[in-house]
Amino acid sequence: MLNGRTDVSSETRERVEQLLREQGYRRRNSRQPGRAQLIDLVFNDLDSPWAVELIRGVEDIAHAAGVGTVVAAVHQEAAATRQWLANLRARTSDGVIFVMTDVNSPVLAQMHRLHIPAVVIDPANGAGAEVPTVGATNWAGGLSATEHLIALGHRRIGLVAGPRDLLCSRARLDGYRAALDAAGLAVDDALIVPGDFRHESGFAAGERLLDLADPPTAVFAASDQMALGVYEAARVRGLRVPADLSVVGFDDLPEVSWSSPPLTTVRQPLAEMGGLAARTILRMARGETLQAPRVELATELVVRDSTAAPVTSRSPR
Amino acid sequence: MLNGRTDVSSETRERVEQLLREQGYRRRNSRQPGRAQLIDLVFNDLDSPWAVELIRGVEDIAHAAGVGTVVAAVHQEAAATRQWLANLRARTSDGVIFVMTDVNSPVLAQMHRLHIPAVVIDPANGAGAEVPTVGATNWAGGLSATEHLIALGHRRIGLVAGPRDLLCSRARLDGYRAALDAAGLAVDDALIVPGDFRHESGFAAGERLLDLADPPTAVFAASDQMALGVYEAARVRGLRVPADLSVVGFDDLPEVSWSSPPLTTVRQPLAEMGGLAARTILRMARGETLQAPRVELATELVVRDSTAAPVTSRSPR
Repeated sequence: MLNGRTDVSSETRERVEQLLREQGYRRRNSRQPGRAQLIDLVFNDLDSPWAVELIRGVEDIAHAAGVGTVVAAVHQEAAATRQWLANLRARTSDGVIFVMTDVNSPVLAQMHRLHIPAVVIDPANGAGAEVPTVGATNWAGGLSATEHLIALGHRRIGLVAGPRDLLCSRARLDGYRAALDAAGLAVDDALIVPGDFRHESGFAAGERLLDLADPPTAVFAASDQMALGVYEAARVRGLRVPADLSVVGFDDLPEVSWSSPPLTTVRQPLAEMGGLAARTILRMARGETLQAPRVELATELVVRDSTAAPVTSRSPR
Repeated sequence: MLNGRTDVSSETRERVEQLLREQGYRRRNSRQPGRAQLIDLVFNDLDSPWAVELIRGVEDIAHAAGVGTVVAAVHQEAAATRQWLANLRARTSDGVIFVMTDVNSPVLAQMHRLHIPAVVIDPANGAGAEVPTVGATNWAGGLSATEHLIALGHRRIGLVAGPRDLLCSRARLDGYRAALDAAGLAVDDALIVPGDFRHESGFAAGERLLDLADPPTAVFAASDQMALGVYEAARVRGLRVPADLSVVGFDDLPEVSWSSPPLTTVRQPLAEMGGLAARTILRMARGETLQAPRVELATELVVRDSTAAPVTSRSPR
């Protein structure tokens, strides 16, 4: 049925739909008193297209299982978290997926006390508590982005890093360092500028890098939004991407393929991460044992049109 | 109601409000213990940053009221809709917000039978059923986008239109026509190219417009995604925005301020529309009377850097 597929005979479809009708009926009657038929997906903020990819992945799996997805934003505020918890208790939930949360957060201890299964997507840190986590191979992603730029001939490669306190930012930074190291290139701290994953911080970092006496010929930004901020810093200086500056992002949000030029970036499988977290929560809600409580899905470099050899190596000497 | 629309007779409105009162009254008595503390937000697809803006607006208001927001995507498929309905019945809901739905859809009749309040955001059509709706002033938005380009000196203005069967697309097209008319400019059908709101269709439409023997000097695209598709069509032809081609979008998604150059666009207050729909549903769930069952929130032209006077009027003769 998905993707307009019509390879299911109408007879089969009729049987499936019959089954769904029956299930819908049965679910209503035979529902265990404790099963809420709901899972929760809790963000700090709903302010980025990043969020909709995770929602899509979670909703897809939950929906197919006949379970609703409650989306909440707690803004890292105690009051908003309490409000969400009060609502959760009023209606119950089969499990909660937290996004970018400290795995030692009190709210996870709270879930434990309430016997509500919890999973963390993109955990803010790695150590400590025994909550299952779903992440991406951030270190390998940082490595492959930087290796790609080195292979094109770049020697001065800027990094617009993510927030220092997040595990994923540190892993991407370390991947960048490891690629330079492996190529025998020194790590120049002047080329590492912090950002907060948002566009404005990418623009500011891009300005700082391009205004250096010896500016980089390429920039790896630890989020797509920041990479597009670097685009804009280049544009206002009359520089063209990739002719004058190569740029690599991180995430591969659908909208970066709308950028001009289309952005070379490290694909983080956000919808798949959401789907895996949903499957994990549903399994835990059924009392199943998890095979691997900590999973990192593979990132992948997607080469588009924002990277090229540096000008110096192409121009005649 | 904004935009001077008074196409609902006061008699009809009275009937609607009567109906709402009855529904609210019945619901309140029949399930006071059963207040679900949940509202539903139902999309066709969760495939655009457009969606996250609406989710953010709905969640903000619902969260503050101690009510959870269940997000679902039904993919315009009967099976997915039935699955969602089965889940809804299993857990109940205080009300449902549908996004871009036919106001005569059977699912709305179903809500009526279940005594569950319903609101439609951005209704696909205007006539018929008595469901409250929240939209934007699409006609006024199309008018202001086109007037802006005319004021800059453009005479050949292309339109990348939205899907013909949607009310909002038709209103934006009519606003475009009205602005040309008022300026004494003929409407050239060759300059009106259909799209489906997505980036790829904007790129294809941009190519078609730029390949005309007498191409436009400016393009109004009925969505931001399509406007960025026009950017890319210009870029691959070596044309610069706005020096060689002015572009105006529609929506003002947060990510268009990341575009290079930042996009001039018609702001549709998506988060506010979501918030108003949530407030309406919560009011209906409490059995309150609605003052205005059909509301259009004002759009607003946001001028950034993608529009300028046409080359011909600036270059020396």
